[in-house]
Amino acid sequence: MSKPVILVSNDDGIDSEGIIALASALKKVGEVYVVAPDRERSAAGHSLTLHKPLRVDEVGRRWYAVNGTPTDCINLAVNGILRKRPNLVVSGINKGANLGDDVTYSGTVSAAMEGTLLDIPSFAVSLATKRKLRFEAAAEFAVKLARHILRHGLPRDTLLNVNVPPTKTIKGYRITRQGKRIYDNAIIEKVDPRGKKYYWIGGNELKWEGESDTDFYAVSKKYISITPVHLDMTNYDSIEELKGITI
Amino acid sequence: MSKPVILVSNDDGIDSEGIIALASALKKVGEVYVVAPDRERSAAGHSLTLHKPLRVDEVGRRWYAVNGTPTDCINLAVNGILRKRPNLVVSGINKGANLGDDVTYSGTVSAAMEGTLLDIPSFAVSLATKRKLRFEAAAEFAVKLARHILRHGLPRDTLLNVNVPPTKTIKGYRITRQGKRIYDNAIIEKVDPRGKKYYWIGGNELKWEGESDTDFYAVSKKYISITPVHLDMTNYDSIEELKGITI
Repeated sequence: MSKPVILVSNDDGIDSEGIIALASALKKVGEVYVVAPDRERSAAGHSLTLHKPLRVDEVGRRWYAVNGTPTDCINLAVNGILRKRPNLVVSGINKGANLGDDVTYSGTVSAAMEGTLLDIPSFAVSLATKRKLRFEAAAEFAVKLARHILRHGLPRDTLLNVNVPPTKTIKGYRITRQGKRIYDNAIIEKVDPRGKKYYWIGGNELKWEGESDTDFYAVSKKYISITPVHLDMTNYDSIEELKGITI
Repeated sequence: MSKPVILVSNDDGIDSEGIIALASALKKVGEVYVVAPDRERSAAGHSLTLHKPLRVDEVGRRWYAVNGTPTDCINLAVNGILRKRPNLVVSGINKGANLGDDVTYSGTVSAAMEGTLLDIPSFAVSLATKRKLRFEAAAEFAVKLARHILRHGLPRDTLLNVNVPPTKTIKGYRITRQGKRIYDNAIIEKVDPRGKKYYWIGGNELKWEGESDTDFYAVSKKYISITPVHLDMTNYDSIEELKGITI
């Protein structure tokens, strides 16, 4: 039987340590192709480049750098670059957590979204720290999860968002739901040398909301968090309620 | 009682006809502020600009152009530009539909997402055509919906995604769920004058999937579609299933 084809991408850029650790570990499971942004594309959201031509640079054997977003990379890889259809898409390992509402902004998660939209089982892996980056545990877990998904598949229109705690003593994993961050929503106002104002979006995290079944809680208790993320964003519970109103 | 404050944005850019029609109609309901991208930002997804300073240009009374994404515009408006907290965020009127999985890519919808994340009731309005743009019916419906939401609020963490059919004979509105597009996934490969390849992401729509309760179906039958979109993307149905597995 031929080896499964695994497509790897990220949003930190093709030279980042996290993607190198991930791609290298996944070679145990299949034939790995890396198609990733040529530079950092954090907080890119699920954005497609429609108005600009995209360039693909073969930077190594089965390694391709693209001047686009993580979403572009997956779309282009599946529909243009790869000769074989991938059996699995894995995005990461991200430097920093993707928890709670981050899912809607995250470039890392968006690559897995695009894989899912293209009907390929997909997951995203993030390391929940910006300091002391030890990717080994996350890469090792990605290998196990990849094997599991290649054998058993995933629910329809659903990707897995995996966050690994930054500790040597990981206690195991938990299936979780998306929590909610509370930001301080700070905007930093500055004045340039020409006397004109400009702004930086701050957004420091104050804390997070959520019970013991959330992604935040699991990671804080040293568990790997696995959240099934559904591309169908319909709030079904509110459909009946809304049907009762008159606009 | 003071007038409600309504914040208007879009992804087609501040000079587009659709935002002008929307802002002008909403003046019947409240004090309208427009904070929108200085140029087109379609398919921008829910992306925040973190690595570049943002400029705000006051282009008219209560009209501000920003060199960022729709998400940046709402974040900056609420946390920096406006002196009052908006009571409602309205995004649109988009030139073209935002149906099915478009929700995850759409700049128009992402502005309403950001409003919702900031705990402000929000909705997005799109006109489901690229030709013969008649914004009147969509603007009129936005006024009714704005009045309704200002009085009754919206379910938590939920925005409304509104799509208006391109017809003079609209039959009414339907509360719908998110449908699913089927793309042909074409990538167009070209060669530049220097002999180097480049790519365009095509993605022509072939058809859509979905029963009579979907957004696509409602619009095709000349109804305005209103989909409640939840920022919690957890696939709760699959949590129990996943809890049964061993990775």
